[in-house]
Amino acid sequence: MENPIGIFDSGVGGLTVLKAIKKLLPMEQLIYLGDTARVPYGNKSKETIVRYSIENTNFLMQFNIKMLVIACNTSTAMGIEILRNMFQIPIIGVIEPGAKRAVEVTKNKRIGVIGTVATIKSKAYQNIIKSYERKAVIFAKPCPLFVPLVEEGLVKGPVAEAVVKMYLEGFKLKNIDTLVLGCTHYPLLKNTIQKFFDRKIQIVDSAEETAKIVKGVLEEKKLANVLKNENDMFFVTDAAERFLKVGKEIMKGALKEVRIAQVGK
Amino acid sequence: MENPIGIFDSGVGGLTVLKAIKKLLPMEQLIYLGDTARVPYGNKSKETIVRYSIENTNFLMQFNIKMLVIACNTSTAMGIEILRNMFQIPIIGVIEPGAKRAVEVTKNKRIGVIGTVATIKSKAYQNIIKSYERKAVIFAKPCPLFVPLVEEGLVKGPVAEAVVKMYLEGFKLKNIDTLVLGCTHYPLLKNTIQKFFDRKIQIVDSAEETAKIVKGVLEEKKLANVLKNENDMFFVTDAAERFLKVGKEIMKGALKEVRIAQVGK
Repeated sequence: MENPIGIFDSGVGGLTVLKAIKKLLPMEQLIYLGDTARVPYGNKSKETIVRYSIENTNFLMQFNIKMLVIACNTSTAMGIEILRNMFQIPIIGVIEPGAKRAVEVTKNKRIGVIGTVATIKSKAYQNIIKSYERKAVIFAKPCPLFVPLVEEGLVKGPVAEAVVKMYLEGFKLKNIDTLVLGCTHYPLLKNTIQKFFDRKIQIVDSAEETAKIVKGVLEEKKLANVLKNENDMFFVTDAAERFLKVGKEIMKGALKEVRIAQVGK
Repeated sequence: MENPIGIFDSGVGGLTVLKAIKKLLPMEQLIYLGDTARVPYGNKSKETIVRYSIENTNFLMQFNIKMLVIACNTSTAMGIEILRNMFQIPIIGVIEPGAKRAVEVTKNKRIGVIGTVATIKSKAYQNIIKSYERKAVIFAKPCPLFVPLVEEGLVKGPVAEAVVKMYLEGFKLKNIDTLVLGCTHYPLLKNTIQKFFDRKIQIVDSAEETAKIVKGVLEEKKLANVLKNENDMFFVTDAAERFLKVGKEIMKGALKEVRIAQVGK
């Protein structure tokens, strides 16, 4: 089935998920939407985040997508059930895969979870981790400055280190062995976070795990492409230069043209 | 004339302007709109910022405002001329007052200007300062992390200091004697900035200067209230908790109720 897979995020961070999907499923055509006119989502209300998520999905539905990937933890936490009720295609979020992976890798069952204010407040990670591992002890912390840091490309150096220290210092005393990056922007800060913990913890990001689920569902539902379609398309809702700047950092050569999408009008 | 004055900003920062207006003009009724569903503006494109500014003004026009104050440097830089052509009431921005004040206070005519990416790129401050003082030497620098810092209430401490140092270190070598805070969020970082410069520079923020212009125009056009109207109203486009948190910090007791506005639909 040659229809594309639609992927949206509030901004540039979801490209980490797109990249993982591309690596695992090189035959698929991917259509990406970054809602740069309204980024960030993580400090906004559930009602607003759900409205934005529906508008993004409506935009992608124009391309007859066969599957939707919500490459944004905040949208997944707030909206995945609502979107699943509204749209008749498989919809995959980034929280379940990350939560599952955390339970697989932890040894002492002490898991840290970081994300936006909205994601942490939703308790989506906490509830899913608990459903896989009743005995898990979870420490959750919102890190609202991480998204602007990444969107500005400030992923290392003294400012990134000061912000990482401010948010994560408390985790050092908790004896966690696993940290879930519950936001698709955060993998870009992975090195700085690893350094802060002297590489003594396992860091779980959802990108690769989500790609595995996407592959599994495509195969199960017999939706996978048999002929290669390389016409990936990238849309943003605002001509943010920093999308291209940070996006090229993530995608290397694979991000050339970005088009403007009219969303929610 | 008892109609209210409308004031909008992308978020919470414009309350610094509202507060200065209230202090100088306690008889006036003020209606504030913070576009918290789409904050921040400063990294977005001109087209998007102008659209948001028009939608905000249309919302405030419902209240038959007699004057509009654009309490956002980014909107002023991108949209004030367009808004003046569209709406038949006096419209006052925050850039001209700050630029004028900087020229008044500088002794060595070496002036630093900081603001969002959009404001600095527009060269609005640079052009207006030059129009008042041909010999001014201006050093301009965008500080995109300042808005998220303020919106998170992180206005002092090690993170604020690291960010201030990153952006402003270069100014120390330029021998400026005056620094214009070209964003209504930045006054909340004033102490940290002063400390960084060992209090050796004059800091200009637009709030008080803008209030003076508002007063002058009201008097000139005979629009000032003669009877006190204390029914100030505060609207936001999204129920952001941090608006109340940071807003109360700015407004002390004067911010109680915040309502949700439907803007741009």
